[in-house]
Amino acid sequence: MAKMVERMQTRSVPVGRIHIGGGAPISVQTMWKHPLAPVRSADLVEAGIRKLEEIGCELLRFSVPDMRSAELLGEIASRTRLPLVADIHFDHRLALRCLDFPIAKIRINPGNIGRPDKVEELVRKAADRGTALRVGVNAGSLPKTLRRERNVAVAMVRAAEEEASLLEKLHFRPVVFSLKAADVDTTVEANMLFSQTHDYPLHIGVTEAGPLVQGTVKSTLALSRLLISGVGDTVRVSLSDSPENEVVAAQSILQNLGLRRFGPEVISCPTCGRTVFDVTGFLEKVQPFLLRIDKSVTVAIMGCPVNGPGEAKRADLGVTGSEDRVVIFKKGKIIRRESADHAIEAFIEELEKF
Amino acid sequence: MAKMVERMQTRSVPVGRIHIGGGAPISVQTMWKHPLAPVRSADLVEAGIRKLEEIGCELLRFSVPDMRSAELLGEIASRTRLPLVADIHFDHRLALRCLDFPIAKIRINPGNIGRPDKVEELVRKAADRGTALRVGVNAGSLPKTLRRERNVAVAMVRAAEEEASLLEKLHFRPVVFSLKAADVDTTVEANMLFSQTHDYPLHIGVTEAGPLVQGTVKSTLALSRLLISGVGDTVRVSLSDSPENEVVAAQSILQNLGLRRFGPEVISCPTCGRTVFDVTGFLEKVQPFLLRIDKSVTVAIMGCPVNGPGEAKRADLGVTGSEDRVVIFKKGKIIRRESADHAIEAFIEELEKF
Repeated sequence: MAKMVERMQTRSVPVGRIHIGGGAPISVQTMWKHPLAPVRSADLVEAGIRKLEEIGCELLRFSVPDMRSAELLGEIASRTRLPLVADIHFDHRLALRCLDFPIAKIRINPGNIGRPDKVEELVRKAADRGTALRVGVNAGSLPKTLRRERNVAVAMVRAAEEEASLLEKLHFRPVVFSLKAADVDTTVEANMLFSQTHDYPLHIGVTEAGPLVQGTVKSTLALSRLLISGVGDTVRVSLSDSPENEVVAAQSILQNLGLRRFGPEVISCPTCGRTVFDVTGFLEKVQPFLLRIDKSVTVAIMGCPVNGPGEAKRADLGVTGSEDRVVIFKKGKIIRRESADHAIEAFIEELEKF
Repeated sequence: MAKMVERMQTRSVPVGRIHIGGGAPISVQTMWKHPLAPVRSADLVEAGIRKLEEIGCELLRFSVPDMRSAELLGEIASRTRLPLVADIHFDHRLALRCLDFPIAKIRINPGNIGRPDKVEELVRKAADRGTALRVGVNAGSLPKTLRRERNVAVAMVRAAEEEASLLEKLHFRPVVFSLKAADVDTTVEANMLFSQTHDYPLHIGVTEAGPLVQGTVKSTLALSRLLISGVGDTVRVSLSDSPENEVVAAQSILQNLGLRRFGPEVISCPTCGRTVFDVTGFLEKVQPFLLRIDKSVTVAIMGCPVNGPGEAKRADLGVTGSEDRVVIFKKGKIIRRESADHAIEAFIEELEKF
């Protein structure tokens, strides 16, 4: 159904090597979860960035709470092609410093900076450098003047509009907005409302969504409602879990709605008392590899050689086995038998033939 | 929105101490993932059952591929109040043996049993014993006669109707149906179609949904579409992961749609470079406890004491801290400061005050 989604028209905002809005593919982003300041060398962070990039992360945000973090992020940004985002609160000097580096976007709310001359200094420099901004409104930290509004979604939209007016006065256009709440209905309502009267691209997500499973459920419910209505230009799933799982969750939502394709579609049996093949173990081993494959194939990982190939006969490639042997099947027909030691190798070999 | 869902009217099927259909609360179920046959004593299985029951699992299914498993399951069923389901393929003798024990439901497809006298023998005994049946149609194992039908959802409904007619001829009424496919659209379409013309309660789920994150996304998309249309009387989320996570995912879907309430609503921050409190670690330690609390409260677990209480001010109870100290807050106001050693204890103490 969602394949026919007509997306809301938004302005195109260049963010490093990608665009957000204006019909660009809906991008997937996550956030670095450790402080930068205690990092002695950028090498470790860069290894983490490569890993995220390999699984399909398209935009990565870092908290920049101090000048040391700004310097280090600048250094890292000079050495990667992945668009990096600096997340800054209140202190416009941190943003000014970030603008000296190839940082792709800065998340900062002009309303929090204070004096208008400081806002203007920041916005002029961002315009000179061609750097995008994101304004992020969160239901939990609305300006005092709006806290009496009974409808939280309406208050969020007003907060966003106040921020927008500060930037519009300065004729600054490359801005992405986000309006996040910790519950599904408020998040959906705020974004739907905002998108009806503004052409800013939307970064969508539920904030503080919770632990892995609950947070994935909540994010799927909210984001799918927005996405099937054509709302949303970039996605962040916020989990109290790893950035990798945030990326996989966001990709999975977009893929199942037919809006993007990231790697193969995986069919895997939940295992039961009949299972003789270690589905979960095989999945874990093969998953990092699957995520690097940019092919439109369906892969099945099944628990038993009796029903496995039959149940998964619409899969392009599948695997199942007993404890020491595996069978590899194509469209439901067994094509190879291997020892367990060679299972992954053989499976990847067949996958590469596609 | 979903709080106003009008559920499809279905017949009420008694399954052990619960009912499925007829307006009963939508129950959560999962499946035991290990073979029973090699189990020497029922004790270990019973410990696992207790754990699942504690987190709110309401129905538990076991594969019964041989007579040894049937005997052992019977023994276990005699010693637990949790309704247990025997999953049987082809061999009606296994089902007959299970009917000698207090097993709450048998999943078996009459069409697979073969001779009509065998079907009749099974159905008569189930009727005598007051045991419910579930007929489970899977897109991957449709009868040969239906495989040419282009619309898989339509073929699934026809397969279900063929099974239904076998039971209706014998006037057997306590039957639950399931129609599962590995993709969202087929699963939704088959269940919507079936529910329009039949009053059998529906066990809903996506089969072979995949690994934890992807499978949770796929299941949330399919089940939410059905549930907001009023379709579905019991839920199984099938993941290549633990039964515990299947239960939590199913509960989370129902809770976020306003259809059931299981324990507190958890707000937890995704953590970032500003985080000074181990959100994930605290969550892991406190989660088993949270799941046992049958209270309508919102709990927040936040990463930093500066923004945490403010961001989570709508939470009934929250916690955050630095490495060695925690603060506990109620509705955004700090009410206690404790050493990290006493954090969980103090938190649970406050939770119990509600």
